[in-house]
Amino acid sequence: MIVVPLIERKRDGATLTAEEWSALVAAYTAGDIPDYQMSALLMAVLLRGLARHELAALTDAMLASGQRLAYDDWTVPRVDKHSTGGVGDKVSLVLAPLVAACGVAVPMMSGRGLGHTGGTLDKLEAIPGFRTGLSLAEAKAQVMKLGCAMIGQTPEIAPADKKLYALRDVTGTVEAIPLIAASIMSKKLAEGLSALVLDVKHGSGAFLPPLAQALDLAQTMIAIGEDRGCPTVALLTAMDRPLGRACGNALETEEAILALRGEGPPDLMEVTYALGVEMLLAAGVEKNSKKARARLENALGSGVAAEKFEQVIAAQGGNPKVVEDPSVLPQAQAVEVFAAPETGIIMRVEPRVIGRAVVALGGGRIQVEDDVDPSVGFVITVKPGDRVVEGEPIASVFARDQAGIELGMGALREAIGIGGKLEQKPLPLVSHRVTKAGVEALAAIPQPPGRAPRAAPRG
Amino acid sequence: MIVVPLIERKRDGATLTAEEWSALVAAYTAGDIPDYQMSALLMAVLLRGLARHELAALTDAMLASGQRLAYDDWTVPRVDKHSTGGVGDKVSLVLAPLVAACGVAVPMMSGRGLGHTGGTLDKLEAIPGFRTGLSLAEAKAQVMKLGCAMIGQTPEIAPADKKLYALRDVTGTVEAIPLIAASIMSKKLAEGLSALVLDVKHGSGAFLPPLAQALDLAQTMIAIGEDRGCPTVALLTAMDRPLGRACGNALETEEAILALRGEGPPDLMEVTYALGVEMLLAAGVEKNSKKARARLENALGSGVAAEKFEQVIAAQGGNPKVVEDPSVLPQAQAVEVFAAPETGIIMRVEPRVIGRAVVALGGGRIQVEDDVDPSVGFVITVKPGDRVVEGEPIASVFARDQAGIELGMGALREAIGIGGKLEQKPLPLVSHRVTKAGVEALAAIPQPPGRAPRAAPRG
Repeated sequence: MIVVPLIERKRDGATLTAEEWSALVAAYTAGDIPDYQMSALLMAVLLRGLARHELAALTDAMLASGQRLAYDDWTVPRVDKHSTGGVGDKVSLVLAPLVAACGVAVPMMSGRGLGHTGGTLDKLEAIPGFRTGLSLAEAKAQVMKLGCAMIGQTPEIAPADKKLYALRDVTGTVEAIPLIAASIMSKKLAEGLSALVLDVKHGSGAFLPPLAQALDLAQTMIAIGEDRGCPTVALLTAMDRPLGRACGNALETEEAILALRGEGPPDLMEVTYALGVEMLLAAGVEKNSKKARARLENALGSGVAAEKFEQVIAAQGGNPKVVEDPSVLPQAQAVEVFAAPETGIIMRVEPRVIGRAVVALGGGRIQVEDDVDPSVGFVITVKPGDRVVEGEPIASVFARDQAGIELGMGALREAIGIGGKLEQKPLPLVSHRVTKAGVEALAAIPQPPGRAPRAAPRG
Repeated sequence: MIVVPLIERKRDGATLTAEEWSALVAAYTAGDIPDYQMSALLMAVLLRGLARHELAALTDAMLASGQRLAYDDWTVPRVDKHSTGGVGDKVSLVLAPLVAACGVAVPMMSGRGLGHTGGTLDKLEAIPGFRTGLSLAEAKAQVMKLGCAMIGQTPEIAPADKKLYALRDVTGTVEAIPLIAASIMSKKLAEGLSALVLDVKHGSGAFLPPLAQALDLAQTMIAIGEDRGCPTVALLTAMDRPLGRACGNALETEEAILALRGEGPPDLMEVTYALGVEMLLAAGVEKNSKKARARLENALGSGVAAEKFEQVIAAQGGNPKVVEDPSVLPQAQAVEVFAAPETGIIMRVEPRVIGRAVVALGGGRIQVEDDVDPSVGFVITVKPGDRVVEGEPIASVFARDQAGIELGMGALREAIGIGGKLEQKPLPLVSHRVTKAGVEALAAIPQPPGRAPRAAPRG
C-alpha cells in the first residue's frame, strides 16, 4: 500500500479514515509496511493527535489483528479492572477474587512489570507453581467455572499492538495518549467484557504524573470503550507515594493475601473497595454504592473472597496453601530494618525511587526478557504526614545479599523525607470519577507549596 | 549510541547540542542507527523545527560526511546559483557561462529532475556526448581553467545527505524547511564558494508554493550560509507559470542557447540578469547593480558568453556545434501545434500540469533510476494576460508518437485557461530580495481575487 500520502496527511493535521487505519495496521502487522514508515507515522500521531473516529478505528484494527473471547449466551456479567500502573499496586490480586466472590465474572488479563512499576503477572508468579500462561480457551473455561481467571496477554490477542508497542519503545513514541489508550483498550476489548473499570494513577510515581494527562488518558479510554459498546468508568487514584506497605513481588502478594483476610492496610483497602464498587455497579449486580460496598465487605469478611483466591490459585497450578500460610512464598536471604534517621514528620515517600530500587535489587525488569527475583523489595510502614521518632523502625529491606541491603538502605534514605512540617499534602487516594458523562471531583487536590489555594471542587 | 532520549527531547520541543547532531548524523551514515529511529526523529524535526545552532550543526555534520573542494590560494571569486526548481527553469544553462564570461568562477553542481520540476543535469545531457559525472578533481581543474564546470552531486559530497534524503522521501518528511535548507546547503558549501545566490521560487508550480514558506526557506538557507562564512543572498521569483517558452529537456537547452545568442524570451532574460547581477555583486567584481547588469549584457551581446558555453560543452565531452546549430539536439518524432480553442485573454498557464505532462511524455522521472527522453515536451508561446484569437497557434507538443501528442494536447487544454478578463494578476518575476539584513520587497504581490487589496510593499 502507498503509505507516504497517509503519513503526510496525519503530519499536516488532517485525519485518516477508518478504512485507512484498518489497512495500515493490517499491512504493518503482515510486514508489508517497513518500520521506518510506521515510526514516522507514530511520531506524527504523537504530535498531532487522533480524532475520535481514528482512535476507534485504530483500536478496532489492533483488536481485529487477533482473537477475542466470546461468551455467547452465558449471562453472567464480566467486568475487568485495568490500572495504568504504580508502585505497591497489588489491587488486582485482592480485587479479582473479591469481585468474583460477589457474583461478577472477572476475566483479568494483566501485564508484567517494566520500568519502575510492578506487574500483576510477576506478583502472581511469586506463588509457587502459579501459571499465568493459560490459552484463551483455558481462561474462558475457568472464568465460566470459577468466575475468575488471571492471565497474561496471549499471543492470540492483538498481535498488532505487540508489534506496534515494540516499535514505539525504541522510537520515542510511547508517551502518546491516543496510542497508550488504543493499546490498552485493544487488549481489554478482546476479553469479551460487559463493562470495564479503569484505575488511572496520577502523581510523581505514575506513568503520566500530571493530573491533566491522567484525565485525558481516562477520557480517551472511556471514549474508545463506549464507542465499542463496553461501558467504561475510571477512577483517578493517588500515586504520589507507594500504595499499601509492601513493594516487591512476593511481599506484595503476601500483603494482598492479608488484605483478603481482612488485615490489609487502609489505603490499599480504600482503593480496592472504590474500584470494586464501580465493578459491581457496572455489572448491574448492585444499584447503589452503599449496597455495593456492603456486599464487598461481606464477601471479604466472610472469607468467601479469600476462598475464591484459593480456588483460582489451585486452578492455575499454584500452591493454594499460600492463602493460609504466606510463608510458602519465596523468602529473601537478607533482611534489615530501616530506622528513622531523625525525629519529625514524614514529608514524602517517593514512589519512583522505591520502584527503581526494587528493579535494582533484582525484583523488576530492565529488558522485557529479564528474569525477576520475587523475594526482594521493601516494606515501608509510614506514610506522608506520620510523626516518627529518631531510631524508630519505619521500613525493612528484603534483598539477596548484603550489597542489596546497602542498595536498599540508600534508596530508603533517598525516598523518605523527614522534616518539621508537611510542605505538600498528599493526593487524595481517590480524587476523580470519570464517566462518559464527564468528570466528577471527589476530593480537593492539594496545591503545591507557594501557590494560591483554589476553590474546593464540587462532589 | 542511545537515540531514544534525543528523539524524545526533540519531540518535546527542546533542542539538541551541536555534538549530539554531529554524533547522530555520523552514526546514521555509518549504519549504526536504524532507519526507524531516524525517521521518527525527522518527523519530530518537521513538526518541531530546528533552532539556528541545530541547523548549523546538522548542515556541518552532513558536510563533514564527505569531501569538499578547496581552492587554496586561487584568488578568483567562486559563486554558484541554486534554484529550488520550477517548470521551464533553464536559467542555470544561461547563467553559468554568462557569469563565467564576466570573470567569476562558477563551480555549478546541479540535480536531476524529480516530480514535476526538471533538472539541469537532464537538460545538459540532452547535448550529445555531454558528461555531467566529473570527479571533484576534474571539476576543480576545469573551474580553474575555464571558470566554469557543470556537474552532478558526486558520491564524495555529503553522503549523509543522500542517505537522509532517501529516507525522507519514503517517510513523509521531505517538506521540512530546516531539512530542505540543510540538505541544499550541505552540498553547496562543499563547492568551496566565495558566495552563493539562491533562486527561491514561489507560486503554484514551486516546490513550496506559498510566499511565506518560500521566504522562510530563503532565510533559513541564508542563516546557514552566513553562519558558515559563505555570504548568501536570495531572490524570490515567480513560478505561477512556466519560465520562458520551452518545457522539456532538449527544448529548454535549445532555448538556453538562443538566450545566450541574444534571442531569449523576456521573462527568462529578466530572471537570468537579476540573478547574474547578484552573483557579480557577491563576487565583488562590480560595485553596483547597474554596472553589473551592463557587464552581463555586454558579455552576452559580444558572444563571449555563448563561446564560454561552447568551451564548457567541449571540455565535458559534448558536441560544441550545438551552440551554432541547436538542431544537433535530439528531435521529437511527432510534433503538433495547439491552437487557441477560443478568443479571449490567457488567464493561466498552470506549471504543475505542464511539468507533470512532460514526465508523462517520458521527459521526466517517476523513480530516481528512470531514463529520460530528452526530445519530448512543450513550447508555449503565450503568457497570462496575452490576448488570443480562436484558432491562433499558441503552443506545440513534442512527443514520441501520436499517443503522446494526444496526451500533450489534453494537458495543454487543462493547463491553459482562456477567459474574458484576467482574474488573477501573475506574480512579479522577481518579487523579493532577501539578505542576512532582511527582506526587501521589489514589487507588489497581486492579491487573490475576492480579497481586499493591501498596501503596496516598500522598495
